[in-house]
Amino acid sequence: MEIREIAQKAKKVSFGLTSISTEIKNRTLLTAAKLIDEKRALIKMENEKDLKTAEEKGLSKAMIDRLLLNDKRIKGMIDVLYDVAKMEDPVGSVIKMWKRPNGLKIGKMRVPLGVVGIIYESRPNVTVEAASLCIKSSNAIILKGGKEAINSNRILVNILKEAADIEGFPPEAIQFVDSTDRSVVKEMVQLDEYIDVIIPRGGEGLIRFVAENSRIPVIKHYKGVCHVYVDKFADLEKAWDICFNAKVQRPGVCNAMETMLVHSEIADGFMPEMIRRFKKAGVELRGCERARSYDSKYIKPATEEDWYAEYLDLILAVRIVDSLEEAINHINTYGSHHSDAIVTENYTNGMRFLSDVDSAAVYINASTRFTDGNVFGLGAEMGISTDKIHVRGPMGLEDLTIPKYIIFGDGQVRE
Amino acid sequence: MEIREIAQKAKKVSFGLTSISTEIKNRTLLTAAKLIDEKRALIKMENEKDLKTAEEKGLSKAMIDRLLLNDKRIKGMIDVLYDVAKMEDPVGSVIKMWKRPNGLKIGKMRVPLGVVGIIYESRPNVTVEAASLCIKSSNAIILKGGKEAINSNRILVNILKEAADIEGFPPEAIQFVDSTDRSVVKEMVQLDEYIDVIIPRGGEGLIRFVAENSRIPVIKHYKGVCHVYVDKFADLEKAWDICFNAKVQRPGVCNAMETMLVHSEIADGFMPEMIRRFKKAGVELRGCERARSYDSKYIKPATEEDWYAEYLDLILAVRIVDSLEEAINHINTYGSHHSDAIVTENYTNGMRFLSDVDSAAVYINASTRFTDGNVFGLGAEMGISTDKIHVRGPMGLEDLTIPKYIIFGDGQVRE
Repeated sequence: MEIREIAQKAKKVSFGLTSISTEIKNRTLLTAAKLIDEKRALIKMENEKDLKTAEEKGLSKAMIDRLLLNDKRIKGMIDVLYDVAKMEDPVGSVIKMWKRPNGLKIGKMRVPLGVVGIIYESRPNVTVEAASLCIKSSNAIILKGGKEAINSNRILVNILKEAADIEGFPPEAIQFVDSTDRSVVKEMVQLDEYIDVIIPRGGEGLIRFVAENSRIPVIKHYKGVCHVYVDKFADLEKAWDICFNAKVQRPGVCNAMETMLVHSEIADGFMPEMIRRFKKAGVELRGCERARSYDSKYIKPATEEDWYAEYLDLILAVRIVDSLEEAINHINTYGSHHSDAIVTENYTNGMRFLSDVDSAAVYINASTRFTDGNVFGLGAEMGISTDKIHVRGPMGLEDLTIPKYIIFGDGQVRE
Repeated sequence: MEIREIAQKAKKVSFGLTSISTEIKNRTLLTAAKLIDEKRALIKMENEKDLKTAEEKGLSKAMIDRLLLNDKRIKGMIDVLYDVAKMEDPVGSVIKMWKRPNGLKIGKMRVPLGVVGIIYESRPNVTVEAASLCIKSSNAIILKGGKEAINSNRILVNILKEAADIEGFPPEAIQFVDSTDRSVVKEMVQLDEYIDVIIPRGGEGLIRFVAENSRIPVIKHYKGVCHVYVDKFADLEKAWDICFNAKVQRPGVCNAMETMLVHSEIADGFMPEMIRRFKKAGVELRGCERARSYDSKYIKPATEEDWYAEYLDLILAVRIVDSLEEAINHINTYGSHHSDAIVTENYTNGMRFLSDVDSAAVYINASTRFTDGNVFGLGAEMGISTDKIHVRGPMGLEDLTIPKYIIFGDGQVRE
């Protein structure tokens, strides 16, 4: 099937999804969970094909690991389906209603976005996460996964469609682009007549390609250059723990810290122990001149590029600053507007940081590693946005809807 | 000044706007109102230049009328400034806050979008409307008006900047593209590093050009193909009044009705009187075969193109349908997802229409002509969106903000 035809089908079925009952949507999710559990052997068999191809092609160990669907990950997908089924259905909720002098009653009612296109790489779990959120929010979804996961994605989509068919949710609302041809992406992002929003998930290259070619609104983040700022009034114990966790706990993800900013007046107390801990964990440090003065043999000199860098690795840029303003200015200039934290016991500094740091998630006294739909309590996430419209940060169930205006009159006309 | 330099300046100043007090913002608006009142003669003199050029170039009467700034329109701008000053400041309001099991308190706080680029044609009033909304919502704005209004726009921007300067609001937050060169638009919409959202207002050509070339998220509507559906259970008096108002009261605007749908079982009672009224008002009708049967001399045959047409004139397409479903299907297929109304006394049909018509504003028993930020009670409007993300319908003050996540911890790290 051509991508245009797929998109047309999705659009056509999307109009009827608003009136599908919450019960049917929940039953579809629960039946999908049951089928995934039952068909575990089949899923693993299909996944095995992808793993074999990946090995033959010499993909990296990290890539192969992301492809793998073992029992733990299958349980993870089942858990997501149960979680999403439990969440409140956002469709149809009226978030506000008011009366105008002419008697018109005007309300804002949440409705689905329509057709959501997701373009993603590698992890086949995304297939189930994204589809489950779209089913619950009454959106049609077009899934374009990576070619390396084509067999795993296909079997998961077939199971989801089977569940939909059993429970009376239109299976055509779950569309799968069964193609390993990359040119299909370029065509897909031009179909603004049929697709309402595009969510790219993967490497920066894929996301830039989508953003530059899309005529459809895109919800995205290019990268996560996250900061922790250790304020003059920081509690040292909290600062050490938070900085260590933000860098070391899982360095390969977008909410890990990439640059640490330290107030000059606390640096003498803070730096030696922090350096000791990072050294022990094998973290490479790249610092400004003043940061290097604490261990110039261990800390390499940072270049201008280091302030922009997303290492996704055990590497950290370090800068000593002289004020809260300098820290905020650094973050707003070099950061990626993803997740940034201040460690401080000073009320005013904390509130100022919250207000002025222009990022999707701003923390006081906690690790940046918490930016995640599930951890925030939004259920699964469709992606993370560092854009400024529609949604900032993790995109959850509610963000797959948008309020439209509903107006109740009794014959009003405009004068 | 180059557009890139303008955008850089706007971005730079935007980070500090979040912490400007509501009082300073309101005083800026009120002082601008006062200055516009005082400098009325100067404004008219500059406007006169634009009017003269327009006449020399032989612009249409309608175009010239849109350019004109007379006392009534100057009062309109002053009123907008007073209205926006009175509105509640959305910046900093926390719309939700919850606690996670690990003790993290997570909230969603409204913050400005950052830098708003508006590209508009003709009406110089838009300069004041757009700037006032951006001042109040702590956004920097880049104003790119049409070349036909360059002198009027320039003097208005200068007055706004003067008011900002007097009251301590950074004047650089109001940037004016003082150029009549159209190629600047193409360059402007590529500057995604500095501009957070683009709002094009004007003809469909301008909007398509912006949407196709922009790398920045665009909030827009191409056109308004609005419908009134006269249900089988309509109150005839209401139906006649609403249809007449929606078509005739101001046919040149995007919320006027372009297609009327009539249920076959009420058509005999409804059509003759409706035709009589439209005839009297000089409305040209184009109908399906069944509609034409009510007056085949007066009603011309409609072609497939008529169902898609935005006439912006005293022309109306008419179709007889056999069911509510057929009406909804017609609207979702041919419409522009702007504003659509049902006239009915039947509760279930009304609620079904509200839920299933995929438009920014859906009405029961009222004219589509009400879709307008001011009429809805949102104050002035930045534009109207028929897209599915960020905002549907009139874009008001609150839509110039977006919630970011704020997280209060006391040392939490991720396990």
